[in-house]
Amino acid sequence: MDNVLHLPSSSQTFNVGAVMERAHHGGGWLLSGIIGVNILTLGCALVSGSAFNSVAITAVHRQIFLIILLLLTMLWMLFYAVVTSKKDQAVLFKDGHAGPVWLRGGLLLFGFLSLLMDIFKIATYVGYLHCDSAVKVAFPVVQAVFLIVQTYFLWFHAKDCVQRHTNFTRCGLTLLLSTNLVVWMAAVTEESIHQTEIPDLDVNVSHKMYRGISALVSSYGSVKCKCSHSACDTFKDAFYYLYPFNIEYSLFASAMAYVMWKNIGRLVGDHRRQSVKFYPKDVRVGPVMGLLLAVAGLVTFVVYEVDILTEDEKNRNRALLIHFIMNIVIVSLMCLSTVIGCILFRLDHREHVSEKNPTRSLDVGLLVGASMGQIIISYFAIVAAVATGARGYLNALNLSWAVLTVLQLGLQNYFIVEGLHREPFHVMQEAALHTNAHAVREHPEMSVVPERQKSKYSMTSSPETLSWKRRVLKEVCVFLLLANIILWIMPAFGARPQFDHPIEIKFYKFTMWSAIVNIGLPFGIFYRMHSVASLFEVYLIS
Amino acid sequence: MDNVLHLPSSSQTFNVGAVMERAHHGGGWLLSGIIGVNILTLGCALVSGSAFNSVAITAVHRQIFLIILLLLTMLWMLFYAVVTSKKDQAVLFKDGHAGPVWLRGGLLLFGFLSLLMDIFKIATYVGYLHCDSAVKVAFPVVQAVFLIVQTYFLWFHAKDCVQRHTNFTRCGLTLLLSTNLVVWMAAVTEESIHQTEIPDLDVNVSHKMYRGISALVSSYGSVKCKCSHSACDTFKDAFYYLYPFNIEYSLFASAMAYVMWKNIGRLVGDHRRQSVKFYPKDVRVGPVMGLLLAVAGLVTFVVYEVDILTEDEKNRNRALLIHFIMNIVIVSLMCLSTVIGCILFRLDHREHVSEKNPTRSLDVGLLVGASMGQIIISYFAIVAAVATGARGYLNALNLSWAVLTVLQLGLQNYFIVEGLHREPFHVMQEAALHTNAHAVREHPEMSVVPERQKSKYSMTSSPETLSWKRRVLKEVCVFLLLANIILWIMPAFGARPQFDHPIEIKFYKFTMWSAIVNIGLPFGIFYRMHSVASLFEVYLIS
Repeated sequence: MDNVLHLPSSSQTFNVGAVMERAHHGGGWLLSGIIGVNILTLGCALVSGSAFNSVAITAVHRQIFLIILLLLTMLWMLFYAVVTSKKDQAVLFKDGHAGPVWLRGGLLLFGFLSLLMDIFKIATYVGYLHCDSAVKVAFPVVQAVFLIVQTYFLWFHAKDCVQRHTNFTRCGLTLLLSTNLVVWMAAVTEESIHQTEIPDLDVNVSHKMYRGISALVSSYGSVKCKCSHSACDTFKDAFYYLYPFNIEYSLFASAMAYVMWKNIGRLVGDHRRQSVKFYPKDVRVGPVMGLLLAVAGLVTFVVYEVDILTEDEKNRNRALLIHFIMNIVIVSLMCLSTVIGCILFRLDHREHVSEKNPTRSLDVGLLVGASMGQIIISYFAIVAAVATGARGYLNALNLSWAVLTVLQLGLQNYFIVEGLHREPFHVMQEAALHTNAHAVREHPEMSVVPERQKSKYSMTSSPETLSWKRRVLKEVCVFLLLANIILWIMPAFGARPQFDHPIEIKFYKFTMWSAIVNIGLPFGIFYRMHSVASLFEVYLIS
Repeated sequence: MDNVLHLPSSSQTFNVGAVMERAHHGGGWLLSGIIGVNILTLGCALVSGSAFNSVAITAVHRQIFLIILLLLTMLWMLFYAVVTSKKDQAVLFKDGHAGPVWLRGGLLLFGFLSLLMDIFKIATYVGYLHCDSAVKVAFPVVQAVFLIVQTYFLWFHAKDCVQRHTNFTRCGLTLLLSTNLVVWMAAVTEESIHQTEIPDLDVNVSHKMYRGISALVSSYGSVKCKCSHSACDTFKDAFYYLYPFNIEYSLFASAMAYVMWKNIGRLVGDHRRQSVKFYPKDVRVGPVMGLLLAVAGLVTFVVYEVDILTEDEKNRNRALLIHFIMNIVIVSLMCLSTVIGCILFRLDHREHVSEKNPTRSLDVGLLVGASMGQIIISYFAIVAAVATGARGYLNALNLSWAVLTVLQLGLQNYFIVEGLHREPFHVMQEAALHTNAHAVREHPEMSVVPERQKSKYSMTSSPETLSWKRRVLKEVCVFLLLANIILWIMPAFGARPQFDHPIEIKFYKFTMWSAIVNIGLPFGIFYRMHSVASLFEVYLIS
């Protein structure tokens, strides 16, 4: 923004140009949508085809399609980077809300783990080169390069509000978005098929067999084609463990590409984030309770991961029991504190933010949308448990966990959305007098209402000591934040009670249930990370 | 609006109240969303559960759930109707764009056919009362009442912009929306299962067997329970033929409920539709060509429907051949004329409508979203045809049809969206001088541009004779409109080449393919009807 203010003449002409271009952007918007839809549907058909009919469409066909997509997307990203580095007028506006640090950090972390996955894949398939297609090596190589280019691109350009070449950029971004979604679909399908390939999974199947099956299956699928080096099976095990991170990476990249696409042509005002100071000493109970819960969660998580791999049925049941109880405790406490937070929102009469904020709406949309993943898993679990009568303590605990999770997600969504739409407290104080005088001037008949409001604010929010309401609200935020972190860690690092507890597998059959979990859970993990960031923001403006 | 203007004092206080309520509507919006999501997910889990595990969750469980939903929704609709009839202040604003006549007409038509389906269902299941659950009779009874109440409700209230009790209305409308979507899901699943139940569907299975199988299957499923009256099988056949109309009805009702939900709290200006006159004599070639095409389409459709039911393989192939060729001709001509239309849009330099119009955006969103159904079917057909090599003339024709359909849908979406976003011609003429003077006063430096524009308009659009551009544009609109009608009639009244030509069934297996077609095709049918309405609008403003 500063450059604009210093160059009045050029910025003037530029702004007129931007507005003119905005008026004619309809075509590009539509064209980019059509391109995106076509790539997505074609990708969906190819992936389904290769899943349902492995004779006519093999993994090789799908990978050739993906390689073409990845190369095209990389070309566009390089072109974009070159163009924007040359003409500094191309990106004058940056959206401060887009690409927040948690999203970029997550992208980097998951990008690194996906890169590791690709390296393991290359190492594995090099061993099969003498008897299998070279495309199986080429695909992870291209994907690895793509990961580096895309992470670089999104890290530096996620905040851009493009003003020049809008039509071309729009099409490029839908290409980026749909490529990531096709990669996501392919990864989800591959992961589901990999899990389903377990020969004749029975209810009585030893649990360790399911977890340790990958080595068996991977050699199983290529009986005729032997790996030429000895580390093959280890690599194969390793890269299948890293699949969920790649799925997560694609989701992150898609979210960022979508936000960039929405920001094209936006003229953002100078919405610098007000430097809200963070006083950790304001809150005590929330962090202490939250940390205790997180540590307890971590301990039970480790116990669970160790015990669930044992052969002993009793040990495994105990592990499940501890995991279920721990989760129920966490979720119940979260529900309780969220209810307290919601009541406090009702009690304090802060105004809702009236100003339109597209990034905020988008953010809320992504949050609520991502929560659907966990909600769907929970409802399917509830139906399965209720329909089979929920006999036995494990089934009863599983049912209560699912019910409480749905409740918790609904309450937390409500809490976060309400919290984000309130005026920050400190702004209120400064603004109160101003708007008040303003209101009196314009609507003399309404002067009573703001007067009363003002007196309330000035009474409750003296800068030195926080009012009890704000204090409790902050405690609630910190507690929920820490609880969300532990609920993120558990599924992100491998806890899969959905497969360790057999009731849903029996009820829905393995294919269906693994599809639900593999689609829903990555969204659930994304939701938890997103919640942490949003709760931190709610904490700051409370 | 008139009442408002005549009652200044009451409307004044009312408006302030409305604005105040709008400021605090965040909660209701969110709560209604949470309710909708929960009903939908629970419904989805129940429907999937009953589809994948018919032992623990039977159709009876699902129907009990649906009965509860239907009763709750009816209660709310009655409550709403009573409240709005009493307080005339509750609905002061009506959105003229919402609930257009084609949508309400379609609702009435499909509602009537759904009612017929329910009557046949009742007649059938009454015959099983002595040995089957009474819920199977109760459900169609409740649904029949629901159909009447809902059609009445949507017919009279689709245009409402509710201002009072907004939170409660919001929740009620999401209840309505999610009930319709759950009914839709249940119907789609039932229809798919019904088609899949054909025992050991082989490629060599006689075609007539597939079409005539319903009688066989319906008696098959209830071997132990014999119907007590003789007309049972006839009724069962009949109601399965009416299923697609019920699916379509639910989609229509969902679309209308969604628009109503979006319109809550909107303060609409007096956007009366300008009385654009409709001169049918302006156009000649378009209607003639379109009518010829429609008649030819109808004839081949009848031939197809007769021939496809014969035992003779040769006759069936000939029917498919004629159907494919006819469709390819229609779609190619549509592509050609749409391209001409798009070029004309490039040539004439009418302004894009800059004013925000939520209903218009919603309308366009529904149109483009509905086209996804047909696009998905086409892409799956393309992948199947390409992967199997498209050997034989029928496969080659099927492939070309699918490719051309995707092209046609993309072009038509572009054409309609561009057309709807242009200023009407007659408005331009009047407005040109005014905005021009205005612009000169405010931005003296920009006076050159509007001047040039103005001269162009006044040159090209004399009121007496239409310019050739406008004339051709109108011809294109009429032609596309008639072509869309014939493309609507064929699938709506029973043409299912997707099942009559076995390549996709072989490729994707029957379950998968019938799910794709049963989900995609109703959206495709909805899309064609919607296109007809939108093209008529484009015709008027061209």
